[in-house]
Amino acid sequence: MIVTVTPNPALDLTWHVERIVPGGTHRADTGVARAGGKGLNVARVAHAQGAPVLALATAGGPTGDEFAAELASSGVPHELTPVQGATRRSVALVDEHLGDTTVVNERGVAPTAREWDALRAAVARALATGSPVRDVVDASGSASGRAAVKKIKPVLVLSGSLPPGTPDDLLPSLIRIGRDAGAIVIADTSGPALLAAADAGATVLKPNAAELAEATGIADPIAGACELLHRGASLVLLSRGADGMLAVTSDEIVRARLAEPLAGNPTGAGDAAVAACAVLMAQGEKKPTVLLRRATAWSAAAVLMPLAGEIHPSWPDLESALIVDSPPLTALSRPSTERTPR
Amino acid sequence: MIVTVTPNPALDLTWHVERIVPGGTHRADTGVARAGGKGLNVARVAHAQGAPVLALATAGGPTGDEFAAELASSGVPHELTPVQGATRRSVALVDEHLGDTTVVNERGVAPTAREWDALRAAVARALATGSPVRDVVDASGSASGRAAVKKIKPVLVLSGSLPPGTPDDLLPSLIRIGRDAGAIVIADTSGPALLAAADAGATVLKPNAAELAEATGIADPIAGACELLHRGASLVLLSRGADGMLAVTSDEIVRARLAEPLAGNPTGAGDAAVAACAVLMAQGEKKPTVLLRRATAWSAAAVLMPLAGEIHPSWPDLESALIVDSPPLTALSRPSTERTPR
Repeated sequence: MIVTVTPNPALDLTWHVERIVPGGTHRADTGVARAGGKGLNVARVAHAQGAPVLALATAGGPTGDEFAAELASSGVPHELTPVQGATRRSVALVDEHLGDTTVVNERGVAPTAREWDALRAAVARALATGSPVRDVVDASGSASGRAAVKKIKPVLVLSGSLPPGTPDDLLPSLIRIGRDAGAIVIADTSGPALLAAADAGATVLKPNAAELAEATGIADPIAGACELLHRGASLVLLSRGADGMLAVTSDEIVRARLAEPLAGNPTGAGDAAVAACAVLMAQGEKKPTVLLRRATAWSAAAVLMPLAGEIHPSWPDLESALIVDSPPLTALSRPSTERTPR
Repeated sequence: MIVTVTPNPALDLTWHVERIVPGGTHRADTGVARAGGKGLNVARVAHAQGAPVLALATAGGPTGDEFAAELASSGVPHELTPVQGATRRSVALVDEHLGDTTVVNERGVAPTAREWDALRAAVARALATGSPVRDVVDASGSASGRAAVKKIKPVLVLSGSLPPGTPDDLLPSLIRIGRDAGAIVIADTSGPALLAAADAGATVLKPNAAELAEATGIADPIAGACELLHRGASLVLLSRGADGMLAVTSDEIVRARLAEPLAGNPTGAGDAAVAACAVLMAQGEKKPTVLLRRATAWSAAAVLMPLAGEIHPSWPDLESALIVDSPPLTALSRPSTERTPR
């Protein structure tokens, strides 16, 4: 069972406008509302690939009602912790002419201490009661039949930003709940929370190069990744945008990339990488190279899709086409081209 | 009783962003949601000035729920006709650095024939049961006591856009309902609906110069206004932005303006003018010059407020400062400076 936690979910609202004139007034067709947030993107991808998933998030206010309704219609299994503060909105205005998107993300409203307790209790409950065995897609990506029923390990995924005012201990406390339940814990976070997640013993961390440098204060990405390993993480998956991804453990450094970068929508690419890692680790996979290949392939396949939380079905071809090597350290110190996701 | 009808209401969402970069990602505090639409702006202004008001609109979907909740908290008496289609959203991104606002208005979803029937029935019911006498603010703007109880005439205000797919007969049918109930009918509309409103015998029409020219195909604003009078209107209030307003009847042409235009927010200025006209006509006032002065003063007082649907309490000073004259026709043919409101 993969349990994803989205501590700062958002109702994502998207409008397409023919050509946006700053300061102007525009007409548009009805916008699309979607339950958003990085943990939900992870859950959507993993669920679509047949993995047993439970998405946990908070929801409050009228936006929370709309968020809950959209999530229910998506079919992704989920449990929402009710909160007083209204679920934040995220606004995307797509300029159809230029093809770019102007985004405004509300910062979000922090739940109360009691509401955070309720979310923590939901996480503990989900990990305790999660079905240990279920039909899943096997590691090759083909649909499994009865023959492919596998033992599923509990995986806890903690993804995305935290509302302003969130106690520093929230993420560490969730990681401890995961570890106490015997779960693999994957954290996708940034800033001081990234170091706190490493200190609390998250199994896998997935920063991008800019996030890693900012959190550790170390410009060199390998040295930064080693800092996270020293603090307590077992695997650092470093996303490098068009340069692919790196897997760094205490034993090895592996790089995976496509020969040519793909054009498309990078939003949600990192979430697809986390989903790949969660799905494989739930199936018992531990080898960094295998995890890295799948994460890089799903990440690339997400770039081909218009919406975050989806991957293109051609991902096995992308995985086959990956260039995977263990490069000399000097080759890895040039700046990454990745954009920082929200 | 003033009954306002908003056939295409919107949940107005506003975010303030420090500096908007097209194509960029921004953080913002929680946006403000407000029940919007021109008829609601008219109702808010008239209600705040003590006039007996009932605001009618449709509401549907989760956005309709939020719209209804905000309207309830505003204290403006209202009755919402439930519809299946979700109430549209309107998005405003305020650039705090430049001071300008980028607006995206959804076009809206047309109600079904049965839902339009229900709205028409609500209008007929409101005009039939509206209390004929109530305490109101008297014409000087001071609060009335028992001594100022006045006979209130029924006024029907039809304001704003129509959702795509609205039957051409909707506005004329609402005007007929108003006339059959003995009400004064004020219509603030544009395009072919403006001509249809004149044909159906709306008492007052309030186009701006661009709307008038577009609807009539006549460049000269006086000739355009006369076309509306010939078709059946009694008074045309022509808003000219910083050039003030004109009142045109079959007998006279009066102009009112401030010596210096005011800087501020023009959104809702036309709605405040309609509110002034509605409040005075409900009190039995018919003189074009008196209506024009109040409409111009409230319109200017709306420019001083950050939100549509509000007027600045200094409006009596603005009214006193107006320059009112009956200019030679040749002075009125230059282009207006008004921006076209949504």
